[in-house]
Amino acid sequence: MDQNTNALTSERYQRGWKKLREIDGEAGEKVIASLADIAPDFARYVIEFPFGDIYSRPQLDLKSREIAVVAALTALGNATPQLKVHIQAALNVGCTREEVIEVIMQMAVYAGFPAALNGLFAAKEVFAALDTAD
Amino acid sequence: MDQNTNALTSERYQRGWKKLREIDGEAGEKVIASLADIAPDFARYVIEFPFGDIYSRPQLDLKSREIAVVAALTALGNATPQLKVHIQAALNVGCTREEVIEVIMQMAVYAGFPAALNGLFAAKEVFAALDTAD
Amino acid sequence: MDQNTNALTSERYQRGWKKLREIDGEAGEKVIASLADIAPDFARYVIEFPFGDIYSRPQLDLKSREIAVVAALTALGNATPQLKVHIQAALNVGCTREEVIEVIMQMAVYAGFPAALNGLFAAKEVFAALDTAD
Amino acid sequence: MDQNTNALTSERYQRGWKKLREIDGEAGEKVIASLADIAPDFARYVIEFPFGDIYSRPQLDLKSREIAVVAALTALGNATPQLKVHIQAALNVGCTREEVIEVIMQMAVYAGFPAALNGLFAAKEVFAALDTAD
Amino acid sequence: MDQNTNALTSERYQRGWKKLREIDGEAGEKVIASLADIAPDFARYVIEFPFGDIYSRPQLDLKSREIAVVAALTALGNATPQLKVHIQAALNVGCTREEVIEVIMQMAVYAGFPAALNGLFAAKEVFAALDTAD
Amino acid sequence: MDQNTNALTSERYQRGWKKLREIDGEAGEKVIASLADIAPDFARYVIEFPFGDIYSRPQLDLKSREIAVVAALTALGNATPQLKVHIQAALNVGCTREEVIEVIMQMAVYAGFPAALNGLFAAKEVFAALDTAD
Repeated sequence: MDQNTNALTSERYQRGWKKLREIDGEAGEKVIASLADIAPDFARYVIEFPFGDIYSRPQLDLKSREIAVVAALTALGNATPQLKVHIQAALNVGCTREEVIEVIMQMAVYAGFPAALNGLFAAKEVFAALDTAD
Repeated sequence: MDQNTNALTSERYQRGWKKLREIDGEAGEKVIASLADIAPDFARYVIEFPFGDIYSRPQLDLKSREIAVVAALTALGNATPQLKVHIQAALNVGCTREEVIEVIMQMAVYAGFPAALNGLFAAKEVFAALDTAD
Repeated sequence: MDQNTNALTSERYQRGWKKLREIDGEAGEKVIASLADIAPDFARYVIEFPFGDIYSRPQLDLKSREIAVVAALTALGNATPQLKVHIQAALNVGCTREEVIEVIMQMAVYAGFPAALNGLFAAKEVFAALDTAD
Repeated sequence: MDQNTNALTSERYQRGWKKLREIDGEAGEKVIASLADIAPDFARYVIEFPFGDIYSRPQLDLKSREIAVVAALTALGNATPQLKVHIQAALNVGCTREEVIEVIMQMAVYAGFPAALNGLFAAKEVFAALDTAD
Repeated sequence: MDQNTNALTSERYQRGWKKLREIDGEAGEKVIASLADIAPDFARYVIEFPFGDIYSRPQLDLKSREIAVVAALTALGNATPQLKVHIQAALNVGCTREEVIEVIMQMAVYAGFPAALNGLFAAKEVFAALDTAD
Repeated sequence: MDQNTNALTSERYQRGWKKLREIDGEAGEKVIASLADIAPDFARYVIEFPFGDIYSRPQLDLKSREIAVVAALTALGNATPQLKVHIQAALNVGCTREEVIEVIMQMAVYAGFPAALNGLFAAKEVFAALDTAD
């Protein structure tokens, strides 16, 4: 890659890294760190595309974005670790616990009661960890 | 059922019916009508539980609720007719077209580009129908 | 393959073919026929494994087996053509229309209302075709 | 809510609670209890809609209903805790272990061998816990 | 964005566009074109991330990449238009029709017979369109 | 079953068993062993259909077949134990670790970043176990 490319990669990367820290906090940093020895390029893509490109777009506020993610991951039901990261992220960007619970409960209508139950239990763990940390 | 039961069913049903009309509009009424000859009891449950119980809860605003549903149905990718109803519903309760597009685009990160593409094409159809109706 | 193999393939195949006709009727035969020019070996596997092996087992009656399939395909929500074949199959092996509707309705609890709605609309089409054919 | 509403809520709730205990037994009660501190309203909905409304319908026997649920949750493959509750529930309402195994095995045809394998391993755990408890 | 950024965006974009044309051909260009009036930024992301970043990586040959995509989209079963694009793409990058059929058939083992059947029918349509075009 | 049947069952079974050992190695044998006390017939079907029938077909090399499976199981995201078996199997039949990682990374495009992340973490565990065993 030429110097311009490095400059730009760096710009998208830096914007993404800042956004990832703003949204996911320490949990997001841990995900990135855990990729270092298995797929470092993928760590870079996670920072650049979801965070540098998508979350950095001004067309939708971060609170709405996290409501969308918590809903989708609850409905899909096959990515519990990521759901927990985003339940925490939703709180980080301004959702109340009550609002997070409400989004998850609503998924009973669209993805069934088991999906909603497992989402609620994930939230219970995240909230408990927060209360213990206090 | 005794008289009290009828009274209450009626109350949840009426609250749900009003909420369904507020959110889904004519598209929601058509879904209910289409169930009349195959599963009328299910039509009643649709009105009572999702709309009478869940959407009537004050803990989350309707705009956030529709962002959650558009996200989830885009991610699941196997319920296009319902996704279209809720893209329209999102507009009905105050989302802009740009916000709806943004929620769907973000699903590329959580459910893949094909899911997001199919969601965008669903939105394109809904918006085109609205523009034609104008 | 040696002669014994041909003899046995033929035995599983014949048992499977008979079972497929008993359960799926004409709709099943059409599926097999539609594979002839694209994947004839797969047509043979469909007959041999699901029908020759699984459906031929005496440990569960065919009515229960079709209730299981209608439930699963409604819940998965991504195989409407096969769901229609099995709604018909459920009727063929002794389910009433009311029982089929009931199984599909119940899936609202486990896979969400959109999955159940789309299952009900599939049943509506199957029943309408039967009524027209009368 | 007025008094009539409370009376009826109570009626659906009581019918649902009785049905939940009949079907899911102690495992169902534990699920409800585990929701108390995170989403008590959702605990009420679980009792009222799936159990008070759906499972209480006379149009399909409980054994057929549990066959449908075990099939669906095995096929979806993303709700193991709920699958285990319903494997136990299937036994509670009259299925034999052999029938439960047969339903799960059949899902190999409709959702793939991994889904069926994971369902069988869930059944193995449920059966082992029962044998230990004896 | 500063000039460097534009230069780089342009570089990733150009690499991605070239790769998209190499792999997906005309079908890929049509997808991009169809996004122009609904989500032009998303069209850019499709070119930049999947094609400019991922498909341009030298660590895996394009034939293996298309085998992976045909397998995944067949298994997911909820993105038929994209599956068709990638069945064509697999042929474009060196798979034989027989190999494509074989990959799809194998998905019966991992995602069930309905998923494999629907994949085979998608392949049948793609092959028929090619034969008509000849 | 008559003697010819036994002979043939035995032939498919033996071909499948040999293929299962070639592809999945010890991990595959353990899966079969774990079925002995819960569903021995299903153990036989696993050997006969996927391995005796599908993997034994000469139309696609084993390396391509394992790329397809790793892709599909990563995308589905609900069968981690089987994904690990097939990450190992991919290495057994000639994929490099780098190629396996590349297939999983590519799934971010088709099934979302969480599916790819969970696939990468599964690969990390498989590789670590191999390195420990050395």
